[in-house]
Amino acid sequence: MPDAKEIALNSHRKWQGKIEITARCPVRNREDLAIAYTPGVAQPCLEIEKNPALSFSLTRRHNLVAVISDGSAVLGLGNIGPEAAMPVMEGKAVLFKEFAGVDAFPICLDTQDTDELVRTIELLAPSFGGINLEDISAPRCFEVERRLREKLSIPVFHDDQHGTAIVVSAALLNALKLAGKSMESARIVINGAGAAGTAIARHLISFGAKDLILCDRFGILCPGADWMTAAQEDIAAETNPRKITGTLADAMKGADIFVGVSKPDTVTEEMVASMAEKSIVFAMANPNPEILPDKAKAAGAFIVGTGRSDYPNQVNNVLCFPGIFKGALQAGATDITDGMKRAASLAIASVLGPGELAADRVLPDPFDRRVVEAVADAVAKTAVEEQVVRSK
Amino acid sequence: MPDAKEIALNSHRKWQGKIEITARCPVRNREDLAIAYTPGVAQPCLEIEKNPALSFSLTRRHNLVAVISDGSAVLGLGNIGPEAAMPVMEGKAVLFKEFAGVDAFPICLDTQDTDELVRTIELLAPSFGGINLEDISAPRCFEVERRLREKLSIPVFHDDQHGTAIVVSAALLNALKLAGKSMESARIVINGAGAAGTAIARHLISFGAKDLILCDRFGILCPGADWMTAAQEDIAAETNPRKITGTLADAMKGADIFVGVSKPDTVTEEMVASMAEKSIVFAMANPNPEILPDKAKAAGAFIVGTGRSDYPNQVNNVLCFPGIFKGALQAGATDITDGMKRAASLAIASVLGPGELAADRVLPDPFDRRVVEAVADAVAKTAVEEQVVRSK
Repeated sequence: MPDAKEIALNSHRKWQGKIEITARCPVRNREDLAIAYTPGVAQPCLEIEKNPALSFSLTRRHNLVAVISDGSAVLGLGNIGPEAAMPVMEGKAVLFKEFAGVDAFPICLDTQDTDELVRTIELLAPSFGGINLEDISAPRCFEVERRLREKLSIPVFHDDQHGTAIVVSAALLNALKLAGKSMESARIVINGAGAAGTAIARHLISFGAKDLILCDRFGILCPGADWMTAAQEDIAAETNPRKITGTLADAMKGADIFVGVSKPDTVTEEMVASMAEKSIVFAMANPNPEILPDKAKAAGAFIVGTGRSDYPNQVNNVLCFPGIFKGALQAGATDITDGMKRAASLAIASVLGPGELAADRVLPDPFDRRVVEAVADAVAKTAVEEQVVRSK
Repeated sequence: MPDAKEIALNSHRKWQGKIEITARCPVRNREDLAIAYTPGVAQPCLEIEKNPALSFSLTRRHNLVAVISDGSAVLGLGNIGPEAAMPVMEGKAVLFKEFAGVDAFPICLDTQDTDELVRTIELLAPSFGGINLEDISAPRCFEVERRLREKLSIPVFHDDQHGTAIVVSAALLNALKLAGKSMESARIVINGAGAAGTAIARHLISFGAKDLILCDRFGILCPGADWMTAAQEDIAAETNPRKITGTLADAMKGADIFVGVSKPDTVTEEMVASMAEKSIVFAMANPNPEILPDKAKAAGAFIVGTGRSDYPNQVNNVLCFPGIFKGALQAGATDITDGMKRAASLAIASVLGPGELAADRVLPDPFDRRVVEAVADAVAKTAVEEQVVRSK
């Protein structure tokens, strides 16, 4: 009996690639050829030359996202390079299509230089309607995304940052409802101050979080600590209002919410037991969480979530990225703004009705078809309201 | 009644893109997701990290070609830019799939700088099994292709140069048979000394052509002429053995073969009448040839071909590029060599049996399914013989 790893490898051998390119127009005879290719193809070319915005309606651009990685921070595997990153990017492209009907093409680039990544993606942009950045290591990912958002007039979205932030925030919004607490008054601790942790912090602040502390392996982020990166100094200045210092254990005392995007087994039962009443623990280290759900529950946690599909309350980015790009593309959005990201969190959180929401079900199932429609509609509506859409 | 241009434009509006990305693996439930995406996808990633050559079998790379343009020389439309070039590249991708089963993805880059084109395509290479360069203007196209062939270990092929050269050579091989002449003794004139003309000249030389003259708008290319580009100086040194100077009309006197890749109406009936007995005229300017077939025939030409589908003997690159990439990918070729290009010409020429070959049929029909198989088999066989294949 082959194990799960062998099944996965053999499936990939059998598939010989998880995506393919298919034609949407017939080429059965000379007449077809004369319309889809020369000489007929000259007409859409000339129309787009006159008005480049028509590239969205006369080519696949309106529904086409590039899934782009440099292979520097792939899953929990680390810096495995562009060729080895491709199975993940192909998988992501499959999910885009199957969950949202969005065409996504995987591209792994053979550079990890920030300037080169930015310039290369800028040069690719006319061929796509959106850019999904994936598995690019921190802190380069921040600058790559920021510079591309400035330069490009199509949506750019680093899923490892914002997809995670959007879904965990949706989970916390529902968990706080069940715990009878508010975002504004909750004490929140995030362990892991890289791409995901920083994005979660900013996203929660935009939802009203006030008392939010980030920890890294060296301890609590606090202005003045001499071990922080530039990106960590920035986020330290926006968080930790009580200016506490110390370890993760110090931060967790009395906290209402723990969010882990760090390493396995970094949280003890004692640390969970030291939290406030009706505590919420999202331990999302992969594949092994910061603390196992059974232990966290035994130590008194009210609601527990992980990144895994074999426990309740799985934080899975597939709840977000298909819908957020579907909505952005439908609206002709030129950016994915903080408002659109908040709309996506609220949409995910609202899918579960009062009769469905429960301590072991604060997020909808990834295969719940209501999710992508709710997210896409909310994101498209917000893009129009904020007027971040292409002129027609 | 809409005209052909309106039909083509309306068809493109209706299609909303001529290609799409489809999934080759199921994601119906959590079990599927755990195999195609996390955590199962880590296994093929780790295998490829250990042995990057496995990227060809564990992802779509083994069957995936990038169709890349900078939009600088699109059809007869000129420098229309990356967005406007996309309908042509999408069309090409459709033909790759429908004629050869090869997945091709269209990319239009937002730069026309040679160094940037080379570097960008180099960075994209780990995601693809081959690179089809398309509609890049001369003389930049020569350097872009040469440098990429040096740097990359996947096939790089500029179709405007070599696809045209391969198909016109196949046509001439058959035409010479019918005329009872040989490549070695034929006097050959090529009008148009850009990307296509230069490639045709080199390809015919590799088939044994000895007396070959190129003309450009300023006249016959001859060493010492002060109006030639660097690329033209190179090809001038390899051609024109009788060192003649003058105009196209001077070159055509007594010639056995005229090949036009230039401008409409540049050849008169008098010029065709001045050619040798059983002359062969391929007038491939698009959409209007250097001389209309009826006029060339009336002036005494034995065999006439054009680039158009509404006249006999159409030189159409679709006879070549699907099969040449199919063969190269099947063999795991690391390059497309002159030998593989010759094999492609011979394969195209050999498809028509003795009973089929005729003065108005020196090339097979583009929809003749024998062509792609013949070309792919010949190209793959040559790649293996020349040992330009990936080690397994």
